[in-house]
Amino acid sequence: MQNESPKDVRKQIRQGKLIRPTCGLAPGFTQANLVVLPKAYAFDFLLFCQRNPKPCPVLEVLEAGKYEPVLTAPAADIRTDIPLYRVYKDGKLAAEVPDIKKYWSSDFVSFLLGCSFTFETALLRAGIALRHIAEGKNVPMFITNIANIPAGMFRGPLVVSMRPIPTDKVVKAVQITSRYPSVHGAPVHIGEPEKIGIADIAKPDYGDIAVFKENDVPVFWACGVTPQAVALESKPSLMITHSPGHMFITDLRDDELAAL
Amino acid sequence: MQNESPKDVRKQIRQGKLIRPTCGLAPGFTQANLVVLPKAYAFDFLLFCQRNPKPCPVLEVLEAGKYEPVLTAPAADIRTDIPLYRVYKDGKLAAEVPDIKKYWSSDFVSFLLGCSFTFETALLRAGIALRHIAEGKNVPMFITNIANIPAGMFRGPLVVSMRPIPTDKVVKAVQITSRYPSVHGAPVHIGEPEKIGIADIAKPDYGDIAVFKENDVPVFWACGVTPQAVALESKPSLMITHSPGHMFITDLRDDELAAL
Repeated sequence: MQNESPKDVRKQIRQGKLIRPTCGLAPGFTQANLVVLPKAYAFDFLLFCQRNPKPCPVLEVLEAGKYEPVLTAPAADIRTDIPLYRVYKDGKLAAEVPDIKKYWSSDFVSFLLGCSFTFETALLRAGIALRHIAEGKNVPMFITNIANIPAGMFRGPLVVSMRPIPTDKVVKAVQITSRYPSVHGAPVHIGEPEKIGIADIAKPDYGDIAVFKENDVPVFWACGVTPQAVALESKPSLMITHSPGHMFITDLRDDELAAL
Repeated sequence: MQNESPKDVRKQIRQGKLIRPTCGLAPGFTQANLVVLPKAYAFDFLLFCQRNPKPCPVLEVLEAGKYEPVLTAPAADIRTDIPLYRVYKDGKLAAEVPDIKKYWSSDFVSFLLGCSFTFETALLRAGIALRHIAEGKNVPMFITNIANIPAGMFRGPLVVSMRPIPTDKVVKAVQITSRYPSVHGAPVHIGEPEKIGIADIAKPDYGDIAVFKENDVPVFWACGVTPQAVALESKPSLMITHSPGHMFITDLRDDELAAL
């Protein structure tokens, strides 16, 4: 399965044969976060993403009613090609389902946002070990005291992911991730968690606790949880997202996203 | 006047003392294109910009009715701080005025888009001569056969600007402009104009003819005329832009826009 194409993997997902987190599937291809909102929220949400590109890097926006991502995965169907979805009503989780066809409306605008899997692959290939991957855990995520720039009804703090990086690899990690602006890009902060409002590095708001080795420095990147958290805060009448870790697999190669 | 701050220059413009093209004013600070559209068009236009970032690099979007660009020029007023505006009704030029207060509506969404003045400064500083500047002329611009990715009602071809660059400086010119993705970024094409649908390099669709020196190669960049041309094509009931060359001067330093 490790060498299957995004198209083949999406087909299995669509047939209900693959209800599992997508990490490791179709390696080398970009995975994306999904946010679906009624059109009334679409301009404000797109503007929020434009103003906050680090946490909200837009890969593709599907216009009202469209469910085929023609730019990033032609012939795919975002209503069926993600293993698991979350449906929120008035800001509250209402259902977790493997298919959203029955919820679909011609009024829905869908956003595919970049995911840090892409730059993690680049870091690993450059010989920078990632502690959470070695341990088979989820990356720790924290709500910071850094405010996103509001847009219309959307406002809220930046959520970051944290990776312990060996001191002598920190500059390299900045350089590598800087090349991927469409998947969160360069870190937003290095060292001293308290400077960005994180009281206890051992108590992440989401994900698992990370193991630090000697000489590791905490490095913080803008996290794709941010747009979902911010959108939920505004309690939209309806909002659909992928379930954590269950991403949409695009036809874009990770390397295509590298700038410069 | 060469050393005045953006704020001082904008004040003179607001007072009607400076009705002239803005090139050379407040050097080192980023100048921007303006597009004002009724809110009904705003989502489609923002999406068009998101899908076509090279011709339409968004610096700031002002939400409906807002005229202070709080992110790029706090305390400025986009209704008065540009030397000359064009007002289009149903896709036709209806007026050219130094102030748009009397046209203003709380329904207007305003877009400030990056301008190639920024990367031209960077090219000049790197010792790459720009023929049109040496001649005191406008850069030549061409309508290409490259289609932009449509969004909603907005569709149309890419417009490019062309600069003759000495053969041995072409790579350097690519490198330098690549660092400025928010002001059109890297070239879209090098050499052979016919490959992108330009029949005669001596007949630009906009601007002046460029002088080629021996060993100059034509290099093409996405041009900020594109979003205006595309928006006009769709004949919006009302649309307001800056007049060509009469830009909005922001408080952003050109160097702040450099990526990496």
